[in-house]
Amino acid sequence: MSTAPASLSVSTLEKLESARRAAAEVGRLSTAQKNEILAAMALEINRHRDQILAANAADLAASDLSTSSRDRLLLTPARLTALVEALDAVRALPDPVGQVLAEWTRPNGLRIRKVRVPLGVVGIIYESRPNVTVDAVALCLKSGNAVVLRGGREAIATNEALVRILVGTPGVPGGAVELLDSRSRESASELMRARGLVDVLVPRGGASLINHVVEEATVPVIETGAGNCHVYVDKAANLDVADRIVINAKTQRPSVCNAAEKLLVHQDIAREYVPRIVEKLLAAKVELLGDEQTRSLAPGQNVGVAGEPDWHTEYLDLRMAIAVVPTLDAAIAHINHYSTRHSDAIVTTDEARAQRFLNQVDSAAVYWNASTRFTDGGEFGLGAEMGISNQKLHCRGPFSLPELTSTKFQIFGTGQIRN
Amino acid sequence: MSTAPASLSVSTLEKLESARRAAAEVGRLSTAQKNEILAAMALEINRHRDQILAANAADLAASDLSTSSRDRLLLTPARLTALVEALDAVRALPDPVGQVLAEWTRPNGLRIRKVRVPLGVVGIIYESRPNVTVDAVALCLKSGNAVVLRGGREAIATNEALVRILVGTPGVPGGAVELLDSRSRESASELMRARGLVDVLVPRGGASLINHVVEEATVPVIETGAGNCHVYVDKAANLDVADRIVINAKTQRPSVCNAAEKLLVHQDIAREYVPRIVEKLLAAKVELLGDEQTRSLAPGQNVGVAGEPDWHTEYLDLRMAIAVVPTLDAAIAHINHYSTRHSDAIVTTDEARAQRFLNQVDSAAVYWNASTRFTDGGEFGLGAEMGISNQKLHCRGPFSLPELTSTKFQIFGTGQIRN
Repeated sequence: MSTAPASLSVSTLEKLESARRAAAEVGRLSTAQKNEILAAMALEINRHRDQILAANAADLAASDLSTSSRDRLLLTPARLTALVEALDAVRALPDPVGQVLAEWTRPNGLRIRKVRVPLGVVGIIYESRPNVTVDAVALCLKSGNAVVLRGGREAIATNEALVRILVGTPGVPGGAVELLDSRSRESASELMRARGLVDVLVPRGGASLINHVVEEATVPVIETGAGNCHVYVDKAANLDVADRIVINAKTQRPSVCNAAEKLLVHQDIAREYVPRIVEKLLAAKVELLGDEQTRSLAPGQNVGVAGEPDWHTEYLDLRMAIAVVPTLDAAIAHINHYSTRHSDAIVTTDEARAQRFLNQVDSAAVYWNASTRFTDGGEFGLGAEMGISNQKLHCRGPFSLPELTSTKFQIFGTGQIRN
Repeated sequence: MSTAPASLSVSTLEKLESARRAAAEVGRLSTAQKNEILAAMALEINRHRDQILAANAADLAASDLSTSSRDRLLLTPARLTALVEALDAVRALPDPVGQVLAEWTRPNGLRIRKVRVPLGVVGIIYESRPNVTVDAVALCLKSGNAVVLRGGREAIATNEALVRILVGTPGVPGGAVELLDSRSRESASELMRARGLVDVLVPRGGASLINHVVEEATVPVIETGAGNCHVYVDKAANLDVADRIVINAKTQRPSVCNAAEKLLVHQDIAREYVPRIVEKLLAAKVELLGDEQTRSLAPGQNVGVAGEPDWHTEYLDLRMAIAVVPTLDAAIAHINHYSTRHSDAIVTTDEARAQRFLNQVDSAAVYWNASTRFTDGGEFGLGAEMGISNQKLHCRGPFSLPELTSTKFQIFGTGQIRN
């Protein structure tokens, strides 16, 4: 386990070995020590606001990003304040390390205790949002882990400034936070293959990053991922509730993974509901595509043809595809076939039908009469989030401190041997 | 997620798609239905004992395995009885599916429930032990999963007979148990890369299999692995207890992963303890290697030179390497450097020193005054085990039913939307 891969560059290897050594020390910090460090980090960020904003301005000046990407990279004074608040929020969360999850005694007298322990070294590959840098450092530190960051190259000056400040905070063990060179494409690949040095890797970003990690990684990965999310309006829906939820799930922030991309309507209410929701979505500037039945029910309205690829696609934009389904089971089958298993909702007043949907739709978050937009660590009450897991192993959905730990069995004997 | 990889052979693809379809059905079986099936499977195995033993005899006749490998493949009437008992043991375990792990209400009235759900399709690649076939089927069925088996080619007739009987048991959904062709080397690689069709893959076997899976797999993996296990005899040890534990951990069954491979002795007791334990281990036919200090303390005895590779090696044999360490911290550092993080033990009467060892040794199972040989699902009281995880993600150490599940968030609203 401790043998380093041969293929690492000297620079990456040094940083990963430094994180590896630091991990044991971070893991032994008491809750009080970790909270003191987080409070001090908040002070340091506040003390260096101008320096951070200047670095961010340099990144923005050097980049030729699209408007939405620039917005993700941009730090404003208000956003800096939010960064500091995130440090405070993580400080307020309970420390998962050392928590005893179960304890029992065997007939031979062996006492077995299952306790939470840090993962060790957590790697994260992400894009250009500077808040991810601070959230990841805060969450990994509080959960007793060293962290290796590999951010986007557009955010390089911002991340260097943030990491310099965080690492320089009194009490932070040397090596607890390492920033890999985001100018080098190799550094991401190296992180993916650093078995024995990195315990877990969290990729946060678009489908191409995730796919690259899944293909390349030999270290264990918590996949995050795309959200091709559905709202299904049942025949027993309150249509006013349906309107609110469909409009909110589609339009409140269309560029994020928990925004709805697809609308399914039960055929018994389709004659009434399809023209009504089409009008409202078009009024909200949503471009619409529909199956044959949807288009025939909204004949004078501007609804394009939805092709097979549409049902698979996460638009991340003000666009939505609509289908009419004959039954609840057909809605469930459609979602389980096309969904990315992120977040899917049913609107209905019928509890039995809702429960069937909640049980049978195989997604990380399934909603009854609520917007899919709530799939988020903060909205779930988890504090800051490390990501939203789109896999079934280890954790699923938004994850935070407890999911940044592993467990260990501690066994207390009095000389027991096996027969 | 549901798009099948292009590179699968028709035969593998059909079986995996069949398992995928079956998964939803298996996941909906009630606890009573699953227990009935497990009881019926036990009856069916008993009814077909002759057929199974004949198939096993054919496998043995066709193979040119080593003695120990033949022993792993061999089914005797007593071992068949043990297979049936494993089915009964799994039937008696609590059903994890549907268990509510947490439930809370947010300030906006959203009620969030975290429930256990099946993983879906579980793949397992293993070697020639026929009991793994039955254990895996029983555990996956009880946890609501479809299972795809890829056993060793030496056990092909035995596995085909067992699976035919298990699949033919009344009540088993079609596709719930699929056996891939173990004549084809490709079938294992295909299973590793069947993203969207297989939710989790469990490789069980030697280091070369595990490494191959880690390199090739694109589906999430629960790694099992080698055990380079240590017993550390502290200066505050009761030496009689130490003798019992060292001899048991090394000799009771040397070919398994939780057998001890290394002995560390605190230097304050080394002058007394090294010659004493060397004599006992040699009497138990253990071949010994030692560091310089060990060899100088047992001058007339047959202790070879332990080289650097020895400290890394899992012998799986009646062989052991011994080192003298100056301090408890040196013992912990040695173990954290060389161990495969499986099972490591301290022998001491000093509780504070024991607790330091239990906290700081970074292994799945850490023992105070007990043999490492207890790292086993049965010995831990977990019922049958699916494997012993050697990674930190998802689960660590012996794992059974709860670890064959994932979770899902079910969110109950009354029309909530996000602001």
